[in-house]
Amino acid sequence: MTKTNAQPKASISDKLVYTFGDGAAEGKADMKNLLGGKGANLAEMCSLGLPVPPGFTITTDVCVSYYANGKQLPELLTNQIEDAIAYIESKTGAKFGDGSNPLLVSVRSGARASMPGMMDTVLNLGLNDTTVQALAKKTGNERFAYDSYRRFIQMYSDVVLELDHYHFEEMLEEKKRDRDIELDTDLNAEDLKDLITQYKDKVKQELGKPFPESVHEQLWGAVMAVFNSWMNDRAIYYRRLHDIPESWGTAVTVQSMVFGNMGDDCATGVAFTRNPSTGEHKYYGEFLINAQGEDVVAGIRTPLPLDDMPKSMPVVYKQLTAVFDKLEAHYKDIQDIEFTIQNEKLWMLQTRNGKRTAAAAIKIAVDMVGEKLIDKKAAIKRIDPLSLDQLLHPTLDPKAPKTILTTGLPASPGAASGKVVFTAEDAETMALTHKEKVILVRIETSPEDIHGMHAAQGILTARGGMTSHAAVVARGMGKPCVSGAGELRIDYAAKTLKVGGHTVKEGDIMTINGSTGEVMLGEIPTVQPKLSDDFETLMGWADEVRKLNVRANAETPLDAAVARKFGAEGIGLCRTEHMFFDAERIIAMREMIVAEKVEGRKAALAKLLPMQRNDFIELFRIMSGLPVTIRLLDPPLHEFLPHTEEDIKQVAKAAGVSVDAVRHRAHELKEQNPMLGHRGCRLGITYPEIYEMQAQAIFEAAAAIIKEGKENVIPEIMVPLVMMPKELDILKALIDKTAADVMKKSGVTITYKVGTMIELPRAALRASEIAESAEFFSFGTNDLTQTTLGISRDDSASFIEVYKQRGIVEQDPFVSLDVIGVGELIHIATKRGRATRADLKIGICGEHGGDPASIRFCHEAGLDYVSCSPYRVPVARLAAAQAAI
Amino acid sequence: MTKTNAQPKASISDKLVYTFGDGAAEGKADMKNLLGGKGANLAEMCSLGLPVPPGFTITTDVCVSYYANGKQLPELLTNQIEDAIAYIESKTGAKFGDGSNPLLVSVRSGARASMPGMMDTVLNLGLNDTTVQALAKKTGNERFAYDSYRRFIQMYSDVVLELDHYHFEEMLEEKKRDRDIELDTDLNAEDLKDLITQYKDKVKQELGKPFPESVHEQLWGAVMAVFNSWMNDRAIYYRRLHDIPESWGTAVTVQSMVFGNMGDDCATGVAFTRNPSTGEHKYYGEFLINAQGEDVVAGIRTPLPLDDMPKSMPVVYKQLTAVFDKLEAHYKDIQDIEFTIQNEKLWMLQTRNGKRTAAAAIKIAVDMVGEKLIDKKAAIKRIDPLSLDQLLHPTLDPKAPKTILTTGLPASPGAASGKVVFTAEDAETMALTHKEKVILVRIETSPEDIHGMHAAQGILTARGGMTSHAAVVARGMGKPCVSGAGELRIDYAAKTLKVGGHTVKEGDIMTINGSTGEVMLGEIPTVQPKLSDDFETLMGWADEVRKLNVRANAETPLDAAVARKFGAEGIGLCRTEHMFFDAERIIAMREMIVAEKVEGRKAALAKLLPMQRNDFIELFRIMSGLPVTIRLLDPPLHEFLPHTEEDIKQVAKAAGVSVDAVRHRAHELKEQNPMLGHRGCRLGITYPEIYEMQAQAIFEAAAAIIKEGKENVIPEIMVPLVMMPKELDILKALIDKTAADVMKKSGVTITYKVGTMIELPRAALRASEIAESAEFFSFGTNDLTQTTLGISRDDSASFIEVYKQRGIVEQDPFVSLDVIGVGELIHIATKRGRATRADLKIGICGEHGGDPASIRFCHEAGLDYVSCSPYRVPVARLAAAQAAI
Repeated sequence: MTKTNAQPKASISDKLVYTFGDGAAEGKADMKNLLGGKGANLAEMCSLGLPVPPGFTITTDVCVSYYANGKQLPELLTNQIEDAIAYIESKTGAKFGDGSNPLLVSVRSGARASMPGMMDTVLNLGLNDTTVQALAKKTGNERFAYDSYRRFIQMYSDVVLELDHYHFEEMLEEKKRDRDIELDTDLNAEDLKDLITQYKDKVKQELGKPFPESVHEQLWGAVMAVFNSWMNDRAIYYRRLHDIPESWGTAVTVQSMVFGNMGDDCATGVAFTRNPSTGEHKYYGEFLINAQGEDVVAGIRTPLPLDDMPKSMPVVYKQLTAVFDKLEAHYKDIQDIEFTIQNEKLWMLQTRNGKRTAAAAIKIAVDMVGEKLIDKKAAIKRIDPLSLDQLLHPTLDPKAPKTILTTGLPASPGAASGKVVFTAEDAETMALTHKEKVILVRIETSPEDIHGMHAAQGILTARGGMTSHAAVVARGMGKPCVSGAGELRIDYAAKTLKVGGHTVKEGDIMTINGSTGEVMLGEIPTVQPKLSDDFETLMGWADEVRKLNVRANAETPLDAAVARKFGAEGIGLCRTEHMFFDAERIIAMREMIVAEKVEGRKAALAKLLPMQRNDFIELFRIMSGLPVTIRLLDPPLHEFLPHTEEDIKQVAKAAGVSVDAVRHRAHELKEQNPMLGHRGCRLGITYPEIYEMQAQAIFEAAAAIIKEGKENVIPEIMVPLVMMPKELDILKALIDKTAADVMKKSGVTITYKVGTMIELPRAALRASEIAESAEFFSFGTNDLTQTTLGISRDDSASFIEVYKQRGIVEQDPFVSLDVIGVGELIHIATKRGRATRADLKIGICGEHGGDPASIRFCHEAGLDYVSCSPYRVPVARLAAAQAAI
Repeated sequence: MTKTNAQPKASISDKLVYTFGDGAAEGKADMKNLLGGKGANLAEMCSLGLPVPPGFTITTDVCVSYYANGKQLPELLTNQIEDAIAYIESKTGAKFGDGSNPLLVSVRSGARASMPGMMDTVLNLGLNDTTVQALAKKTGNERFAYDSYRRFIQMYSDVVLELDHYHFEEMLEEKKRDRDIELDTDLNAEDLKDLITQYKDKVKQELGKPFPESVHEQLWGAVMAVFNSWMNDRAIYYRRLHDIPESWGTAVTVQSMVFGNMGDDCATGVAFTRNPSTGEHKYYGEFLINAQGEDVVAGIRTPLPLDDMPKSMPVVYKQLTAVFDKLEAHYKDIQDIEFTIQNEKLWMLQTRNGKRTAAAAIKIAVDMVGEKLIDKKAAIKRIDPLSLDQLLHPTLDPKAPKTILTTGLPASPGAASGKVVFTAEDAETMALTHKEKVILVRIETSPEDIHGMHAAQGILTARGGMTSHAAVVARGMGKPCVSGAGELRIDYAAKTLKVGGHTVKEGDIMTINGSTGEVMLGEIPTVQPKLSDDFETLMGWADEVRKLNVRANAETPLDAAVARKFGAEGIGLCRTEHMFFDAERIIAMREMIVAEKVEGRKAALAKLLPMQRNDFIELFRIMSGLPVTIRLLDPPLHEFLPHTEEDIKQVAKAAGVSVDAVRHRAHELKEQNPMLGHRGCRLGITYPEIYEMQAQAIFEAAAAIIKEGKENVIPEIMVPLVMMPKELDILKALIDKTAADVMKKSGVTITYKVGTMIELPRAALRASEIAESAEFFSFGTNDLTQTTLGISRDDSASFIEVYKQRGIVEQDPFVSLDVIGVGELIHIATKRGRATRADLKIGICGEHGGDPASIRFCHEAGLDYVSCSPYRVPVARLAAAQAAI
């Protein structure tokens, strides 16, 4: 029989509650995992001697245990909360539920990572029919007391009792109508008392029991409600979006209330210690006089800029900015702060590292090095490499109005607008002949569409994931792409797309945002990126520390030039097949494919030879002095075959065969699983004349440049999809012979390397034998992931989301390398390859070459370089530096 | 720069020549690798004191060195051959090239493995214008001497001088016409002298130089010619067919001539020590009086059965049978012998282990154990497991005449005749309604064709390899199949196939031979197999020694019953998807697939549940007391979807959706690489209700049988295509819960196991975690080969043959396991899996489970069982026994 497989009960430490207040705290800033960001930072601020209302934090362990035990809170918690309430009472002098000096508290969530607004909060807890009177008396402000009570009942009923808040809003509105007033603040104490009665009646009516008068019952209800809100839909969605594990749980912070709404010597506000948008070193924030935090959020009154504060509250302002400086000096980072001023006394309610734009992040990091707050390494670590994407691509003007039709996957960042076209041919015609900007819309793209993709401003597909053909090629080109917009109904025949109620025709203008996946009607203005001096400074620091070289995947002169501009140290992957889709070449290519005999193929290849040679001459010039890794033909031949009637005729004519023969050949070449088919070096073995032509073009290009003597050429010829060591032996012999022939004929000596992709598990396992012929390895992690995991990246969209939701995979393995599966094969191949050839150069050239987590793995695995799309080069440089620190 | 990669020169021992003769020899039987089969056995016979004409053997090393050094023979050879000739001279008293007592020799090839007729031979070497006269004088038979000389010139010119033999045959025919005679033997000495003059003139005219008079020049020419014939087209083709490595090379044996054609007291013959066709223990052979060996081959005269010899040559017959007995006692195997009788003296020219049919092999092995010649283990080792296939399937009557249309791949053994049909539906209609025997002819088959394949006698496809869908399914069903008959032009619309000049229409009768790949017109009579008592005896011995259990891949009651009859010890793979193609079920299955919501899917699954339950009840009964491993749904859903207009309508109606919705769903499910797509346990994760239904059917079936109390049920539930340990954790929980529910409801305790296929490299690597949930592993070596090597078995045909020819792979990796690639993953998974769970049961259930070499690997890897198609079970039992010895 099978053993049980239930989750083990979470084990939990005995200390469940951490108090803070009055210059001391049980917690500190580095206890975020246990206390959440909010709780840890409140504790830290206390220890720093800053004015923080006393309180306590219930640990995330309690949350984890709560869910592991069928929503039961641990027994130990009861006493610890009682003790902690007593602690607050001792610090404040107020008593919880007391009829003369009642303690009021807030109950807030706080996870390890910030999840703003996703979970629940209860304020003013501790009020009931008795304590409200005491509060009125103590503050001498009856209206304030009853308004607080009304707010509390409304919030508590919503959050804890799960009564829809519209019940209470209706009553509030009616009361205002009755009294013929507009603002809540115009309601007087009597109005509020009446409303409170109505509220409580409503609660009783809806729930069949009265609103809890017991402050302890209130507290427990609120704590449970916050824990429950960890699993509400908003929170789940937010976590999925930001890759926050469910297993972390949230902490709960209970803190004595302070009030910004007790009069005009009160206020509440939020502030950043620097400008989070630009990074400028200047305080930045806003505040509201006589208001509670929720009023700022509600947007009923417009807050004032922080710059106005010196006028209205000069003393507190001075205290506040002193706190800013102290916090920044302490945390050594921009702080995002919440504060409340109660009767001219400043209270700090929150501090955390401020979220900022990529541009701001760079400026702040570089500035802080200048200010000697942090060192260069800290500055490097501070920048999320992926955020650089924002800086490298044009972005939509955030202020422009938009009509969003649908949202697909953010497949290649940047924004683009243009006229909609539905075929690659139309894209080319419109773009090249009519000089129009176009958006190419396809159900999915294939290599035949590449010329159209080149011509287009951006690409939109209905199918395919983040690593679909469209996505990969678009990223390589640095063109915006939205893929997998599944709601689109594309009708090629009618040249329309339908989505929502809209029908978009060919020629209509659309805008796509490849950074968010949004698809919009009409043209939305964009903002061009500027790379700041700070950016260059930071990248320079990154280059100083990183160990990995960074190369680019590029084949066009444009891509190569962009890559070099972004700091690429060579080309790690030049996909020669992309060179065959040009109108003139595709015919020769197809002629080659339909030829029945080797002579026919050679005749067609002879036409391609001079074109390929010129391609390489251009690339070598641009990359002068840097290595250029050229992959020989990789995709199966059927990818090049024509589909339209007219194209088939044209090929038949060019090849001098019948239309039927072309069709027959196409049928013959059709494959069930082309990814595992007749491709890669299998083509080189079965049609050696193809690889021979390519090698000849490479060496002749190199010879031509070397003869000129101006530029330095370092070709590295890469054989794809090796599975058996002998494949490489045979093809290396062919390449070496071709090189020898060219060198003899041209009288020029060419220094070159021959190596292989490691993209099949068998190649990784047999690496020691493969390294006998290979002078370098390049891990093709796209294919290696496909084969190791048995997932076709084109087909994974249908289940990979479910896999992420169910926690089966943490990340799409085509986005971030599966380091314990695919990664083990990389370790094996690296070890075995270097055992045979100690100076074996090893890199990766899959999509993962631009992913920071994967780059960290490559660094740790001892690779020599990563290669990524040109626009990812700065990302990779930075990520490589972070990995090295 | 790159290092050179040339083949290292073969190193070679100093001793290149081994002599034998007159009761002594330098070689012996176990030196086949060095001396070839012929040379080694001649040496052995000498040592046994048998009458063997003296001679010597030039080693295979010389051949290898010859090719490694640009067809140069090693210098050492010259002296060694001279010494060896002197040795023969000393033994025979004759002298090479001598004018009075000339030594004549034969020069023959002899490789490690027998390659009959593939390489060249020269007889009567040593004759020239001088020695022929001496031979005439010595033998007193001028006609014999000149006939020998004529034959020698003709043979030598053909083999060594490469002159087409038709030149000489023409002259011979003309001479016979001139002399008005029919038989060569009627030519007299003068005729022959004249012919010899003509022959020599012809040689001089064609080559510009005379026929060599020097006997040493003759000898070196013949030796080189034999070495050259190692690389002739016939030999290359034969080696490829029989997997004989080119690297072995051939030996050359030079032996003094003896003559069976010197008069009526001379003869030549071939014999087997037992009947090679039936195994009967009785001498078997034929002989010709006054003839040379080549006359027997030429077929001009009909040889006499050996049984006639006692009458004509009683003394020699007695000597001969004594030699037979001595050789059999010595070699302990049936011997295939060549002999010559010269003037009543018996000479042995060859002995080797006789080729025999599978039936004979078994009878001989079992008899020899009875005769105490060999022990049981030797008997087991003696049978080629694959040869058993001959015994298990009906075979074509070898005597029947045939018109062979084309030859495809021998995909599933056995022969079948029937009316040609081109669709699965037609196959079913013709077979079930009209009770016709049909051959299903398809370009390729898909799972939808399975019902048609079941209905057909045999399957013929134009595309697909030895492990294509058609091949795999047919082997599973034990049905003959010829796949990949690429010359067929199938026109589904016209319902015809064209091949060669023939057009075959629907309803025409064809015969296929799945053991040879032949496709024939009309009905060829077949012979039904009978399994002998000897077969059962031998299999019993095999069962005693083997360590591996043998199970079968089966899902139908018929297959399961066949498997059990053939000795299967359970079912290792029950592919549940095969159960869904039945007409009634496929509709419910499709209804399930097109359902938009889980409720719709559950409704459709509820219809399938009782049918699945009955399937399992039947299987469990047949396999009572034995484990039955049931794999949950594996193929992608689109394999089940309808293609015809009518089927689409039917599904739309059944599911209550529009035809467009069905089409949309089909489009949605279409995949680029279905092998790597949404299949296996990915279906179980995304549509848990499917696996739940299947688990419920299994457990309810088990409960029903257990309640009856007559049979014993051991279900093992297998989750396919696991890539992440958590997949299995989730699905095991689902299965365990379903089991608990059924047990609770039925009040019956069911003992079961849950395990997984290991068919992805990642699963092999993460086996230690997977084994935390898995109670058994079954290596799905088809998929594991596909992913490890990155080859789709459906698409490999286009290049795998070239790979075999170029020596990149030795064997199709789908036929015989890639033991150093895929095999390493199996070792890793076995080690890691057992480290977690010491009693983990491990088997394989790919196609390799029936391949002897793969079975040997499984034994060595410490697996518990192999599972193969029912008709392969005896093959696997025997191979497992051989592996254990």
